[in-house]
Amino acid sequence: MKVRKRNIAILGSTGSIGTQALDVIARYHERFEAYALIANNSVEQLIEQARRFQPEIVVTANESKYEQLKEALSDLPIKVWCGSDGVEAAVQAAEVDMVLVATVGFAGLTPTIQAITAGKAIALANKETLVVAGELITSLALKHKTPMLPVDSEHSAIFQCLNGEGGNEVERIWLTASGGPFRTYTREQLQHVTKAQALEHPNWSMGQKVTIDSSTLINKGFEVIEAKWLFDVDPSRIEVLVHPQSIVHSMVQFRDTSVMAQLGQPDMRVPIQYAFAYPERLALPIEPVDFYKLSSLTFEQPDTDRFPNLCYAYEAIRVGGNMPCVLNAANEVAVELFLQERIGFTRMSQLIEKTLQKASFISKPSLNDYLESDTEARKIAFEYAR
Amino acid sequence: MKVRKRNIAILGSTGSIGTQALDVIARYHERFEAYALIANNSVEQLIEQARRFQPEIVVTANESKYEQLKEALSDLPIKVWCGSDGVEAAVQAAEVDMVLVATVGFAGLTPTIQAITAGKAIALANKETLVVAGELITSLALKHKTPMLPVDSEHSAIFQCLNGEGGNEVERIWLTASGGPFRTYTREQLQHVTKAQALEHPNWSMGQKVTIDSSTLINKGFEVIEAKWLFDVDPSRIEVLVHPQSIVHSMVQFRDTSVMAQLGQPDMRVPIQYAFAYPERLALPIEPVDFYKLSSLTFEQPDTDRFPNLCYAYEAIRVGGNMPCVLNAANEVAVELFLQERIGFTRMSQLIEKTLQKASFISKPSLNDYLESDTEARKIAFEYAR
Repeated sequence: MKVRKRNIAILGSTGSIGTQALDVIARYHERFEAYALIANNSVEQLIEQARRFQPEIVVTANESKYEQLKEALSDLPIKVWCGSDGVEAAVQAAEVDMVLVATVGFAGLTPTIQAITAGKAIALANKETLVVAGELITSLALKHKTPMLPVDSEHSAIFQCLNGEGGNEVERIWLTASGGPFRTYTREQLQHVTKAQALEHPNWSMGQKVTIDSSTLINKGFEVIEAKWLFDVDPSRIEVLVHPQSIVHSMVQFRDTSVMAQLGQPDMRVPIQYAFAYPERLALPIEPVDFYKLSSLTFEQPDTDRFPNLCYAYEAIRVGGNMPCVLNAANEVAVELFLQERIGFTRMSQLIEKTLQKASFISKPSLNDYLESDTEARKIAFEYAR
Repeated sequence: MKVRKRNIAILGSTGSIGTQALDVIARYHERFEAYALIANNSVEQLIEQARRFQPEIVVTANESKYEQLKEALSDLPIKVWCGSDGVEAAVQAAEVDMVLVATVGFAGLTPTIQAITAGKAIALANKETLVVAGELITSLALKHKTPMLPVDSEHSAIFQCLNGEGGNEVERIWLTASGGPFRTYTREQLQHVTKAQALEHPNWSMGQKVTIDSSTLINKGFEVIEAKWLFDVDPSRIEVLVHPQSIVHSMVQFRDTSVMAQLGQPDMRVPIQYAFAYPERLALPIEPVDFYKLSSLTFEQPDTDRFPNLCYAYEAIRVGGNMPCVLNAANEVAVELFLQERIGFTRMSQLIEKTLQKASFISKPSLNDYLESDTEARKIAFEYAR
């Protein structure tokens, strides 16, 4: 059977997920086409990618970088666009089959909605989109019959565990977490964590934002919310399980007490490629797990006293409405300030807690309400941080 | 949707698997019917089961028990049959949808073939059938389009891992093994193992034959052969993995290095019910695994110096032809003599090794060749044991 090439638009092609996605595309260039490359500021890298992959479309979201990009690619037959209009046109281009949403944070929301309404399959690496507006996104995806393929390793694992299960109900999801670099730190030690320490993840190589999010466990809280929307499972059925080896990527327990699990090396190319090639599995040049050498997999319950962010996430999704959006906005501000070394490590959680307490509650937010709520929450968080 | 009741014939209803299967049927009597109960000698228990489950047909394979059985059930509208003709008629009865083959050893072969040729779905708990005549059985099942659903916990796990994978090729199977009660014994200690010790399996509650087979690891060798036939995977791709907790029931690695695993409590009702209800999963009153409390799963490579049976099994299936049949016959004799306390624990492996060396080789055996080969091998094994 001849498989038609899949045209992929990469939102965030210069980031950690974006570059790994291009690695997958390069290996299977007869299967996947980098049809549109979209980045924000890293124009030098975007130019390099464009020269190598020769996409149809290249976009810089930052309009001030347009001239530089246009000039550098003037000898190639590539459409060069910019700004939010350029992003929209690229993700909605007729020839695009799938959009990989690999941008970081709230910024992924609008282009994801644009891609869904244009009927594009979504490979979702940006968890903030579902955290902020899970109800809106999933109902839109249902309406436009667009498949949503998770790219987070945990959600890809759950998706794989549900493969072939048809109507079999999920009893419980065991969402695994490495526990981050400070798993064994005391409260006292956590107060003195530096930016450099927080950027050293023990198992996964990821971008700065998600690495900090992992170290505070807010990332795992976001993943609980993401799992709720992707798999329609109540958060009370989702258990976060600390598993320091990051070999079991997540598990699903069914009614008969059977548990299906997906395991492997912690390498993002596996879930990226799975989303691109689904339902097919293609070879990858990764050393498989050798269970003879592995010797042991360990598990423990997360400590929410030291890592309260997990509780804030469960609480935000329990209350619902715009609260997960507020949670995300407060966290984006917290991480930004921590990376600027303007606030300490434990202050990040406090800032989230205070913002959740102060923000106005909207039970059934529209897209505009989300945008306003995001702005309000950022303001509260910034004020509190002063 | 109204699901039609599935009529099940149980070959070996009074054994360990048979009684657990009846436990499943009792719980879901609106889904499953114990249509035919077939046993060998345990007539008292068979009578009790017949009075409770009111099957259409009851069979004792042992003709000398017929009168007793007939007499005891004379007040009920149950057909009472006996002997190999009775067994054949029961597994081929028009109303039977599925035959659970839960007899032990070589004796399962002929009725399994009869059930397959009559187009009955097979729930296979008897691994010796595939060990002895895997090629014949799988080609017959293909010809008669009868599904073969594994009931061994490991093979059920593999089957579940392959669910929804379509044409995705298996790269490697990790077949887990508890390692049995003597996993940590020295060679010296193994020589003094008693029957009582060998009958104490650390994790699984099973019949005598399979418990001894587990303690010598021949059981795991049989499972390698069984997996080859059930999943069409070369034994060189099947790795036996010692996992003393018996929580991971087996794993499958694919080309993208992803590994799917099935986990759960060691309870045979899970795979039995899965085979009965497939593709549906029904609730079971078993305490699910609590990964918060589990703390650790460990893995190690099996030691074939202390447990050479594993090598004999790989060698028998590599050579092929009637060699796995010879392996099985020698082992049946070895276990029988050990249970009679006529030979010691380590002598069982020696007896298998010698029989494999002495038996005549047939590269393309017919059914009759298997029967003759079985007889010859038993003779050699008995002679060697004297």
